[in-house]
Amino acid sequence: MALGVLMALISYAMNFAIGRVVRAHKWLYREVGDGHLLRYLSWTVYPVALLSFSSGFSQSITPFSGGSGLPELKTMLSGVVLEDYLDIKNFGAKVVGLSCTLATGSTIFLGKVGPFVHLSVMISAYLGRVRAKTMGESQNKAKEIEMLAAAAAVGVATVFAAPFSGVLFSIEVMSSHFSVWNYWRGFFAATCGAFMFRLLAVFNSEQETITSIYKTRFRVDVPFDLPEIFFFVALGAICGVLSCVYLFCQRNFLRFIKTNRYTAKLLATSKPSYAALAALILASITYPPGVGRFMASRLSMAEHLRTLFDNNSWALMTRNSSPPWPAEPDPQNLWFEWYHPRFTIFGTLAFFLVMKFWMLILATTIPMPAGYFMPIFIIGAAIGRLLGEALSIAFPEGIVAGGEVNPIMPGGYALAGAAAFSGAVTHTISTALLAFELTGQIVHALPVLMAVLAANVISQNCQPSFYDGTIMAKKLPYLPWIRGRKIGSHPVSVEHFMNSTLTILAKDMPLEEVIKAVTSTDVAQFPLVETRESQILVGIVERTHLVQALQTEPASWAPGQQCCLQDVLAGGCPTQPVTLQLSPETSLYQLKKAISTLINPPAPK
Amino acid sequence: MALGVLMALISYAMNFAIGRVVRAHKWLYREVGDGHLLRYLSWTVYPVALLSFSSGFSQSITPFSGGSGLPELKTMLSGVVLEDYLDIKNFGAKVVGLSCTLATGSTIFLGKVGPFVHLSVMISAYLGRVRAKTMGESQNKAKEIEMLAAAAAVGVATVFAAPFSGVLFSIEVMSSHFSVWNYWRGFFAATCGAFMFRLLAVFNSEQETITSIYKTRFRVDVPFDLPEIFFFVALGAICGVLSCVYLFCQRNFLRFIKTNRYTAKLLATSKPSYAALAALILASITYPPGVGRFMASRLSMAEHLRTLFDNNSWALMTRNSSPPWPAEPDPQNLWFEWYHPRFTIFGTLAFFLVMKFWMLILATTIPMPAGYFMPIFIIGAAIGRLLGEALSIAFPEGIVAGGEVNPIMPGGYALAGAAAFSGAVTHTISTALLAFELTGQIVHALPVLMAVLAANVISQNCQPSFYDGTIMAKKLPYLPWIRGRKIGSHPVSVEHFMNSTLTILAKDMPLEEVIKAVTSTDVAQFPLVETRESQILVGIVERTHLVQALQTEPASWAPGQQCCLQDVLAGGCPTQPVTLQLSPETSLYQLKKAISTLINPPAPK
Repeated sequence: MALGVLMALISYAMNFAIGRVVRAHKWLYREVGDGHLLRYLSWTVYPVALLSFSSGFSQSITPFSGGSGLPELKTMLSGVVLEDYLDIKNFGAKVVGLSCTLATGSTIFLGKVGPFVHLSVMISAYLGRVRAKTMGESQNKAKEIEMLAAAAAVGVATVFAAPFSGVLFSIEVMSSHFSVWNYWRGFFAATCGAFMFRLLAVFNSEQETITSIYKTRFRVDVPFDLPEIFFFVALGAICGVLSCVYLFCQRNFLRFIKTNRYTAKLLATSKPSYAALAALILASITYPPGVGRFMASRLSMAEHLRTLFDNNSWALMTRNSSPPWPAEPDPQNLWFEWYHPRFTIFGTLAFFLVMKFWMLILATTIPMPAGYFMPIFIIGAAIGRLLGEALSIAFPEGIVAGGEVNPIMPGGYALAGAAAFSGAVTHTISTALLAFELTGQIVHALPVLMAVLAANVISQNCQPSFYDGTIMAKKLPYLPWIRGRKIGSHPVSVEHFMNSTLTILAKDMPLEEVIKAVTSTDVAQFPLVETRESQILVGIVERTHLVQALQTEPASWAPGQQCCLQDVLAGGCPTQPVTLQLSPETSLYQLKKAISTLINPPAPK
Repeated sequence: MALGVLMALISYAMNFAIGRVVRAHKWLYREVGDGHLLRYLSWTVYPVALLSFSSGFSQSITPFSGGSGLPELKTMLSGVVLEDYLDIKNFGAKVVGLSCTLATGSTIFLGKVGPFVHLSVMISAYLGRVRAKTMGESQNKAKEIEMLAAAAAVGVATVFAAPFSGVLFSIEVMSSHFSVWNYWRGFFAATCGAFMFRLLAVFNSEQETITSIYKTRFRVDVPFDLPEIFFFVALGAICGVLSCVYLFCQRNFLRFIKTNRYTAKLLATSKPSYAALAALILASITYPPGVGRFMASRLSMAEHLRTLFDNNSWALMTRNSSPPWPAEPDPQNLWFEWYHPRFTIFGTLAFFLVMKFWMLILATTIPMPAGYFMPIFIIGAAIGRLLGEALSIAFPEGIVAGGEVNPIMPGGYALAGAAAFSGAVTHTISTALLAFELTGQIVHALPVLMAVLAANVISQNCQPSFYDGTIMAKKLPYLPWIRGRKIGSHPVSVEHFMNSTLTILAKDMPLEEVIKAVTSTDVAQFPLVETRESQILVGIVERTHLVQALQTEPASWAPGQQCCLQDVLAGGCPTQPVTLQLSPETSLYQLKKAISTLINPPAPK
């Protein structure tokens, strides 16, 4: 509960502060006059300054504060200890850095989910330590991991006010196995967080009561005609293919940046300069009187999403009349920003997609705290909107001709596209639920779920997820990816990939043979069996211990006596008991289960 | 996919057949004239005949077809093999029996979720066997269990057309640990099932397109005023307390029926008579011109739910005018059934609750295929409705006086009550999600979730869940309930409850000592250690094997020779390798994990 409330307060305070900064930027841009140079400068200097500060400040305190933090968290939950990652000193760096990143708004086009999960996990680890200290308890590894999993749910829930999808998303992204009795902890903490977050909005008179963030107004009676299901699935497939392209480009561009001579040098010596350079490129492109005109760059990210989920068809509305491009975004008709008389809706949406695609990839390479979920979600919504608008032009009366006319709602496609694309990039299904919780409507339940499943089928078969890809690119330790998701993996057992040419030591082995065995291979561990006949496994001998024992204690053996391995080991060399028992018939499923048992060792007494 | 489509076809066909039977019953009741005796007979004979046939037919084929089947499934998924339970011969008995049970409508007041999960699991096991046979593969235990878990999701999804909550509900009810990579299988199968189920409704012209089953029309802008959150949580607490009362009464009444001389004899000798007797009592009470007038017994269960979710306040609508009691339920104003001029809305709702409470408990004792989730869900909705109506009378203008008037919607409370009560009885949280998927609206996300959590806190601390209670009452084998859910369980380790006075056998133990050890205790297994000094565990000796070895092979030992245990064991007595390694520091978490690894043994080659 403390965690939920704390995170909600931080999330709300951050939104509040960012809102002020963004408003100041807008005011400056408006008041600076009509001179193009001044306007351009006022548009670009802001994000350049913020981003180089964000990058410089956070990276100077700790390099762990960069990026979203989810890949590192995933590594930790699979049992690897990253000591500094949960240190509370990251906290300030991450909060300040993230605020600066988000204050640049849709120019840099980054989100806050990942860093919030990181912040939440940090606070939960800190609260756990405080609790252990005040209660005089010893720290407990199992309890810590349960708290971390619940904290991840809180992170998502306090950003989107979506407790259900927070819990499910954290399960899907973080773990391979999940204990159901930890489930309610996540729900409780996430509900507290989401409730507090929305409560603050009510107290601050932004909302009349607690509702969802991006409320939609889809038609409830006939939200879609039956044949549209086909287009929803097709949209899912398109999103799946595009997500593969994105993941591939993103991973390779990251690698290119790290290996290219100039960029690698720049990143190593002066991170703020790199951030400033990237910010200048991104801000120049989004300059509204310039290219930004064609990609709705005057809208904030929340406004992007809100307009894309609009249930009216812009293509039909602009078929005969051409709305003006207002000097300021019109709060009642924000969607005018998406329209250009010459390129129409389709031109701007397509241009937005193409530009944001590589701009997002560029933005992800900047070393600073930032989330990458929200931009993915918006790009997905734009893909869906594009298809939806095309369909509404193709079938202006709706698809089923007989009976009542139910025009196609492109907003529904935007919803499905957002869920499918973000689901495909992160390899999760719960993004569908997130879409419903965000919009407060669940009328598209089946089509959105089918689109997400279709997108996932494609992306899971072709590319590692965004998080796994980053783990690989960052060379973090992780459990190797196993073929568990495929039905063909069931007959695979340890037998198929085990090393069957083992060097086995027996307790009654003469010393010469032991030395021969040890020197003929370079493996780190030798299985130790009872006798050469019985082959009953009794332990594992570390190579280093064995060599030590062989080298240091030859004096105690009488010369000429037939020494065997047992005597060497009796000289104090420890044999570890075997805690992971495998047989050739062990299935992959059990192997993974056993490994996760091993890497979550019992709590120290 | 095959599973989902098959189950959807069965579900739809069953609904269709039941609809015809119910219509025939209504026609008979209407046409039989005004004579009270004839009307009474036409009302009661139908359910009595159907129920005694259902009970007699299904129980004569197999006793496993009775009840919901979920408790048995839970037992199976924890590793215990119940051979006959998944036999396809149960299938016919369950389908026919369930159809008869459901055809009695709201008179007997039972649902279909549990049996559908059982049916789905049966078909999945059958399909698995067919696949293994045609592909020439050997059966694979791990794969089977994954398929069963996915099948459970399909069962829920094809009844409610709710894939999300189907998957989550099956996870919550069935497993203690869950492998995330099985997740998408459940989603895929459940989506296919739900899609097919709703598609059939469209093809049969019942629906214009795919929508949710119990569509609601809650106000979207301000679904509830902020202070109402308090009442939602209070409603959750009330539901939690009532669920404890229900679970306690249900378990004890079941025990009473089984131990009471008369009922036990009746159940043992003639199940159809018991079913007929119970049906007669239930049908007599619901006879509409009699007591049934005060409990809306002319409505079907679906109509009960649809009326309870109505967003208008009946109490406010009947404050000044008194609607008539129509001769037939009026399709436009079904809620008139809930109104009585003398007792008002509150009287009928309260009477409905009190009567249905014990009537449901009576109905659950009848040995026939039937689901118990839906009645629980409706009772919960009635509890919520009662509170909602009371609030709408107490605050006719809504709670926040200033600004716009947003009258209280009792339907929202009905939704929260249904989710909270069913969640508390089954110890699950996903009923909240089910409520949203059923109604197609998610505007009450936070209040419903908070009510469900409050209800769960109370019921999980006081009573075992409906399924665990039934497992205990039926004396099925199950993994003992462990204290994993409580935070106080973290410091508990195996040390606290392990048997520390072990009889240990060492390989170098003289025979006399072995015999002394074996005869002094009656444990079934002895740990076997290397030597009496080293105490390195090398295996476990079964008592039966040891006794056999001691009795049958004494001839090979030279008399007078100091025999030790090792010699006995070398005589062919097998020692099992230790596959479950525990230390005093092993945490409960790991213990449970290790046990579930053990009871899902590797696939036979």
